[in-house]
Amino acid sequence: MAQWLHWIDLFGVAVFAISGTLMAYKKYMDGFGVVVLASVTAIGGGTLRDMILDLPVFWVQQPDFLYAILLAAFITIVWLRITHKFPYQILLVADALGLAFFNVMGLQKALNYGTGPFIAIVMGTMTAVFGGLIRDVICREIPLVLKGELYATTCIFGGMLYVLCTLVDTSASMAMLSGLLGTLALRLAAIYWHWQLPVFKGSH
Amino acid sequence: MAQWLHWIDLFGVAVFAISGTLMAYKKYMDGFGVVVLASVTAIGGGTLRDMILDLPVFWVQQPDFLYAILLAAFITIVWLRITHKFPYQILLVADALGLAFFNVMGLQKALNYGTGPFIAIVMGTMTAVFGGLIRDVICREIPLVLKGELYATTCIFGGMLYVLCTLVDTSASMAMLSGLLGTLALRLAAIYWHWQLPVFKGSH
Amino acid sequence: MAQWLHWIDLFGVAVFAISGTLMAYKKYMDGFGVVVLASVTAIGGGTLRDMILDLPVFWVQQPDFLYAILLAAFITIVWLRITHKFPYQILLVADALGLAFFNVMGLQKALNYGTGPFIAIVMGTMTAVFGGLIRDVICREIPLVLKGELYATTCIFGGMLYVLCTLVDTSASMAMLSGLLGTLALRLAAIYWHWQLPVFKGSH
Repeated sequence: MAQWLHWIDLFGVAVFAISGTLMAYKKYMDGFGVVVLASVTAIGGGTLRDMILDLPVFWVQQPDFLYAILLAAFITIVWLRITHKFPYQILLVADALGLAFFNVMGLQKALNYGTGPFIAIVMGTMTAVFGGLIRDVICREIPLVLKGELYATTCIFGGMLYVLCTLVDTSASMAMLSGLLGTLALRLAAIYWHWQLPVFKGSH
Repeated sequence: MAQWLHWIDLFGVAVFAISGTLMAYKKYMDGFGVVVLASVTAIGGGTLRDMILDLPVFWVQQPDFLYAILLAAFITIVWLRITHKFPYQILLVADALGLAFFNVMGLQKALNYGTGPFIAIVMGTMTAVFGGLIRDVICREIPLVLKGELYATTCIFGGMLYVLCTLVDTSASMAMLSGLLGTLALRLAAIYWHWQLPVFKGSH
Repeated sequence: MAQWLHWIDLFGVAVFAISGTLMAYKKYMDGFGVVVLASVTAIGGGTLRDMILDLPVFWVQQPDFLYAILLAAFITIVWLRITHKFPYQILLVADALGLAFFNVMGLQKALNYGTGPFIAIVMGTMTAVFGGLIRDVICREIPLVLKGELYATTCIFGGMLYVLCTLVDTSASMAMLSGLLGTLALRLAAIYWHWQLPVFKGSH
C-alpha cells in the first residue's frame, strides 16, 4: 500500500506542477521560471510543513518528485505549443484530487509526528494550499486562496472528518479514505455549484 | 513567572492577529484569507526564528497560540461589522506593546540557544517585524517596515539595551524589563512625535 | 584553504548585498529597508538551503557574514550619495563571481550532506538564485531570474560540470574549480553577448 500511496503522491505533485506551469505561461516567463513556479506550487506546501515539524524535507531524499515536476511541466509546455488551449475543466478536477491527497498526507504526517488534532488540520490545509499561495505571491497576484472560493475550507472539512475517524478509533486507512473523499466531494461540489465563502466586506 | 510570560506572549500574538485581520478587511478577503493573514502576521516572525535556530516551532506543541489568533480575528470581524470603524489609536499602542514583547522573546530565545549578542539582536528584531513584512508581501504592499517609520529601529535599540544589561551581569528579568521598556518607550515616542528614519533617496 | 574559501564566501555575500542595496535605493526605502533587502539578497538562498537540508544556518554562528552585509550596504550608500551613479558594468561582473561561488558552495554542502547529484544541482542553483528572487518579491517586481536572461541556467550548467567531475573521481578542489569556472564563464559570455532563454510565450 505504501507503494500505491507514493504513486498517488506523485500524481498530486504533477497536477500542481501543471497549475504552476500555466501561471508561468500567463506571465510570459522563461524555461527556468516555468520550472521554479511548477516546483514552488507542487512542493512549497509540503516543504514548509516538513520544515515547521522539523522532519526531513520529503523531496530531498526522493528526487522522483522533482522528475515528476519536470515531466509535467514539459508535457504542459508541449501541449500548449501544439494546441494553444488548455482543458481547464479537466485541470480543475485533477486539482481537486491533488488537493485532497495533499491534505491527507499532511494530516497523516502531523499526527504521526505527535501533534494534536487541531494542529494536524492546520498542517493538512497548509500542505494542500501554501504552494499555490507562494506561486501567486511570486507572480504578484493576490493569492486566489484568500479570495472567496470554497477551496481551503474543503481541506479543513476533510481534516475534521479524518480527525473524527481517528477519535472513534477506525483503522488508519479508513480515516485516510474519509478525509480524502470528504475533501474531494466538497471541492467538486463547490466547483459544480460555484459555492463561495462570503467575502469580508465592510462599508469602506 | 513563566505562566505570566505565556499570557503576555498570547497578548502579543492577539494584537498582531488584529493587525492582520484589518489588512484582510482592507483587501476584501474571505474568511480563510482573514485567518491566513492574521496567522502569518502573528506567528510568521517567530516561526522563521525557530526554523533558523533549528528549535521546535513554538506554536506546534501549544495550539493556544492559534486559538488566540482565531479569537482575535473573530472579535475584530464582529467589531468591524457592528461599528464600521476601528480604534486605530488604541491599536497603535497595543501594537507597540506586541512589538516590545516579541522583541524580548526573540532575544531571550536566541541567547538561551547560545548565539552571540549581535545575532540575538537580529533574531529579536526578526521575531517582532517579519510577520508584518510577510503580511504586506502577500497583500502586494511594499512592506511598511521598510518605508521610513521608526519601527524596526526601536527593536534594535531595545535589543542593545537588553544585551548591555546581560553584559553588566544584571538578573535575567532585569535585562528583559530593560529591553521591553526601551523598545516600548522609543516606539511610543516615535508614534507621538512622528519620528521617521531618513528615507533613502538619491537624485534619481 | 578553508580560510581562503571563507573569504571568497564573504566576497560573494558582499556583492549580493550591494545588489540588494541598489534595489532599496531604486524603491526609496529607509535605512532598515536597505539592511533587510541587502541581507535577504545575500543570505536568503543559503538560509533556505540550510533549512531544507536541516543543517545549522550558516550565518547564525558566524556573524561576520552579517558584518560583511552591513559594511557593503554602508559603502554602497555612501558611494551613491557622493557620486549619484553606480558602476553597473563592474557590478554585473562581481555578481557573476558571487553567483559562481554561491553555486559551488551549495553543491558542496548538499553533496557532503549526502544528497544525490540531481538534488545537489538544485541546491546549488537555489543557493545562488533564491536570495535575488525573494528580494524581487518583497519589492513587488516579477523576479528577474524568471524573465529570460541566462542566469540560473548558468548555475545548472556549472553544477553539471561539478557533478561530472565528482563522478570521474577527480579531487574535490578540481571539481569545485570546474563548477566555478563553468558557471562564471557561461554567465560572463551571456552578459557579453546578451544570450537569452526563449521566453515562454504562446498565442495568448
